[in-house]
Amino acid sequence: MNRCEHTLWLSWPMPAETNTPYETAMAEISAAQNLPKTVVLKQTHTGDEAYEIRNEAEQIVISGDDAGLLYGVYEILMADGRIENGIRKPAYAYRMINCWDNMDGTIERGYSGRSLWFDNGRIAYDASRIRLLARHLASVGINVICINNVNVHQDALSLIDEHLDDVAELASIFRAYHVRLMLSISFAHPLSDGIATADPLNPAVIGWWERRTALVYSRIPDLAGFLVKADSEGRPGPFTYGRSHAEGANMLAQALQQYGGILVWRCFVYNCRQNWRDTVTDRPKAAYETYQPLDGQFLSNVILQVKNGPYDFQVREPISPLLLSMQKTQLALEVQLAQEYTGQQVDIYEMPPLFKEIWDGMGRDRIMAAAAVSNLGNDMNYTGHPFAALNLYAYGRFASDPDSNPEQVTDDWVRLTYPSFSEQDRKLLAYILMSSRSVYEKYTTPMGLGWMVTPGLHYGPSPEGYEYQAWGTYHRADRDAVGIDRTSNGTGYTRQYPDALCRLYENSETCPDNLLLFFHRLRYDTVLKDGRTLIQRMYDEHFEGVEEVYRMAELLRSMPFPQEDAAVIEERMQRQLINANEWCDVMNTYFHRLSGVQDEHNRKIYD
Amino acid sequence: MNRCEHTLWLSWPMPAETNTPYETAMAEISAAQNLPKTVVLKQTHTGDEAYEIRNEAEQIVISGDDAGLLYGVYEILMADGRIENGIRKPAYAYRMINCWDNMDGTIERGYSGRSLWFDNGRIAYDASRIRLLARHLASVGINVICINNVNVHQDALSLIDEHLDDVAELASIFRAYHVRLMLSISFAHPLSDGIATADPLNPAVIGWWERRTALVYSRIPDLAGFLVKADSEGRPGPFTYGRSHAEGANMLAQALQQYGGILVWRCFVYNCRQNWRDTVTDRPKAAYETYQPLDGQFLSNVILQVKNGPYDFQVREPISPLLLSMQKTQLALEVQLAQEYTGQQVDIYEMPPLFKEIWDGMGRDRIMAAAAVSNLGNDMNYTGHPFAALNLYAYGRFASDPDSNPEQVTDDWVRLTYPSFSEQDRKLLAYILMSSRSVYEKYTTPMGLGWMVTPGLHYGPSPEGYEYQAWGTYHRADRDAVGIDRTSNGTGYTRQYPDALCRLYENSETCPDNLLLFFHRLRYDTVLKDGRTLIQRMYDEHFEGVEEVYRMAELLRSMPFPQEDAAVIEERMQRQLINANEWCDVMNTYFHRLSGVQDEHNRKIYD
Repeated sequence: MNRCEHTLWLSWPMPAETNTPYETAMAEISAAQNLPKTVVLKQTHTGDEAYEIRNEAEQIVISGDDAGLLYGVYEILMADGRIENGIRKPAYAYRMINCWDNMDGTIERGYSGRSLWFDNGRIAYDASRIRLLARHLASVGINVICINNVNVHQDALSLIDEHLDDVAELASIFRAYHVRLMLSISFAHPLSDGIATADPLNPAVIGWWERRTALVYSRIPDLAGFLVKADSEGRPGPFTYGRSHAEGANMLAQALQQYGGILVWRCFVYNCRQNWRDTVTDRPKAAYETYQPLDGQFLSNVILQVKNGPYDFQVREPISPLLLSMQKTQLALEVQLAQEYTGQQVDIYEMPPLFKEIWDGMGRDRIMAAAAVSNLGNDMNYTGHPFAALNLYAYGRFASDPDSNPEQVTDDWVRLTYPSFSEQDRKLLAYILMSSRSVYEKYTTPMGLGWMVTPGLHYGPSPEGYEYQAWGTYHRADRDAVGIDRTSNGTGYTRQYPDALCRLYENSETCPDNLLLFFHRLRYDTVLKDGRTLIQRMYDEHFEGVEEVYRMAELLRSMPFPQEDAAVIEERMQRQLINANEWCDVMNTYFHRLSGVQDEHNRKIYD
Repeated sequence: MNRCEHTLWLSWPMPAETNTPYETAMAEISAAQNLPKTVVLKQTHTGDEAYEIRNEAEQIVISGDDAGLLYGVYEILMADGRIENGIRKPAYAYRMINCWDNMDGTIERGYSGRSLWFDNGRIAYDASRIRLLARHLASVGINVICINNVNVHQDALSLIDEHLDDVAELASIFRAYHVRLMLSISFAHPLSDGIATADPLNPAVIGWWERRTALVYSRIPDLAGFLVKADSEGRPGPFTYGRSHAEGANMLAQALQQYGGILVWRCFVYNCRQNWRDTVTDRPKAAYETYQPLDGQFLSNVILQVKNGPYDFQVREPISPLLLSMQKTQLALEVQLAQEYTGQQVDIYEMPPLFKEIWDGMGRDRIMAAAAVSNLGNDMNYTGHPFAALNLYAYGRFASDPDSNPEQVTDDWVRLTYPSFSEQDRKLLAYILMSSRSVYEKYTTPMGLGWMVTPGLHYGPSPEGYEYQAWGTYHRADRDAVGIDRTSNGTGYTRQYPDALCRLYENSETCPDNLLLFFHRLRYDTVLKDGRTLIQRMYDEHFEGVEEVYRMAELLRSMPFPQEDAAVIEERMQRQLINANEWCDVMNTYFHRLSGVQDEHNRKIYD
């Protein structure tokens, strides 16, 4: 594990320990150096997160309630000189981080060390590191952190049982930064506590959850709520008892209602025992098919959490049709900062353009919350690769203000993280970071293909790794063609979209190139809009992707990173170069073996 | 884990506990029921394992030293009425079992439960079960058992350290059955004991091994010796110090010599970090290239242990050329009873025809020892599938007498294991078992292709699972052809064989069909000797393999197995049927996607 001393984007010293957001705001102002003017905080007791900034001649006045004051202070502290007057308010009530931390200290899909708060079945942490993390979360408006894995293993039941007091203590650290805790719960928990069933309509089960929720809130009165992954990838759920997910979610939401808690229900439900021979079932259709018919059946404190795409955090996916179709249900968007399929915090893959693409595709008003699967761990720099911190930063910015400009966000992060950089270095690094997603896409799976990763590990290429497995992730490449026809002539997935989008995607002439192989099955000799054949485009993208990584590596080496960052960046870049070459060569060989088509430019494709 | 009460092939009661082979022989005779005549044992003190049987009018006389008497007694007890006069002697001095048991109780590539003697870092066993096992080993002439994994993990160093007395106690149980213990050692062990190097020419290292060997033999004077896997798949070895494997092996052999111990050195050395792009390196060539130049350099108590084929226990491989080429070196043949690549004791895969094929290919005099990777575990029936016991039985029979007839061996095992079977049932079961290998070959990888298993697990199909990995196991299938050209025009592997064999394999017209794709790269439209194209033959074999499993399942259901066996057999047959169907469909789809060729008989091939 590489550790580096440089930690995240707030480079100035931590103020003394505080207990409330108001105290924290005051302490940050007191400790701040180089403030252009005196900053005055005016507490308003509105009970919300809004704040107003007035940049007056002699002073800056921030008015707001506790949270608003804290956010206003961070805006001032992080500003680039210009401080604009106005009222701001985070776009969504819940801006959440989902940590997939296990009680044994491991993190599912974690690429930056072990858990910051669990070890060996218990809660154990370095309070100063938690405080530093809470400060960073608050600085970009994140206000909820779910501390345990959505796959709730047996030992994690203890979090709302014998370890509840320890959870409450952890909550108090985050509370000073206006970050509320959330807990992942197991739908089957009552079964481990002497109840014969977990049927959500059974009075014993209802009573059990009511009592347990009361107990939890007696210790953590401001807990944000519960997060549930049910009937998914082997997790228990209402289907076991012939109940709908509305019935399951509402039962839990009912128990939470009197405490102001929310029940976040993940919509990641699909058949993970699919037969590869079955060409009718199409996994991207699953979430919509399960949840759309339930629209309007959920209580007001239920939030359905929907992944940005219909699959599972591939490099590029169309927006999930479920996000566009629920009119009478509260939704949270779910994105993944952990780079599970996107380089695992070794390869550089920066998400500001992704966030822009998602919100452009969805519109800002479809959701009332956002959630991000955490990329945090106990590595000294919290996110493994120093640049992976940009994804956390940018997520907070977009979740607070979905109209954010990705270039601006990236530039701000670079400015804050590397304050000694010249403007030229800052611009260059921001440019590299902004390009990194499309570079990764090119050398891995361009044109929306996805899923050609090593099974289980999800790092590195395996063109047919998932082809005969049960996960519903097939491309069915043969000697003539590749891809799944998801149009009305095929699986009909496109019909889950509103008409205009459906028409756009249905037609391979109008479908964006970067999603062509997501929606269409195409022959290798198909001529694309730019005049190239599909197979030539495939070769070109892979070769270009590798070349771009080499250029990126060279440029990065020219930059004046702090020594500890430079070492980590270089070490990971060496691995990215190997990975990019491997992807390029394996994919080109794979498609060359299948198609028999030579590269027009006679570049090296191995036999 | 399925457990059944029926245990192995000796169905009559265990006699009382004994301490020496002579006592055991006497006790077996005393306890035996239904002996046709009085059996008289005449001890000869020859010091070898030979014995003479004289079937006289009133009595049967067995003469021999301890071991010979024991073997003679088992011959009488296991005989089918006919007892022939004559002198017998096991063909090879060492008839060994290699257990890949780890100190934590797991077994590498074990498919019949956990270790019979290790648990949780210590030695722990049920003495009566060990005794029963020793009895069975002795009954088929096995005289050495290596109790720990050739991959010697750190905790297993304790076997020749603080756990040595426990090993000695275990040895005493086996000793009563003329089975000697052997231990796998780590070439790097001195490094864990304060020595700065493990260089085999370093005096400190030599001294360390001398002292350690003296210590081991002071507790276990009849230890057979040490087994070493060096410079293989990440294990330490002489290469680290720029020494040859002869230098490494001889140093250890020297330490063993005065105690009469042997040093068994595994020849499983190849580049397991091969670049898939490299078409020159050819893994099957590796063992010969490493060891053949060392012929004649090994001390007289070194035995090189060579796997039967040049790869790694695939369904069908040609005989290892190393076995045919070492004129001045003592060799052991290594086979694998653990069905790592051959059904994992779920699918039925019986080895008598394999053993016949190996010895036919090698000749009986190339080797002076035989070793088999164990298929044993703590399942009640020791081998997981009741039929897997046949592989252990048959191995002992062939290692004692390589001229054994596989049909006879199989028939004997059925007769002993299921004594209540009618002659018809016995013949039918023997026929099914004898056919099982070719059935498995048909539905998995016919024609010598191999390696299309799920990576890591090695069960179930994954046509390209190893194609871009570093293990050197490629088939390089493309839209036109499949296989590696290993002739003189290709990698030149065939040139490692004696001339006649080389010529046979070089020419695809004379190369046996079942090894065609091992030696040749062939177009799908190649017309084979039987007039079928390669691709049609591929489809046919897979479909026929599945049909044969269905027939096998039906026939087995008609047989009067004891209830406990019947349940295990049926449960595993259900899994074999699923597995066979999966193999058939995946392989046919894979080759259909590549070749585009339709099945001539229009059977179902999925898209």
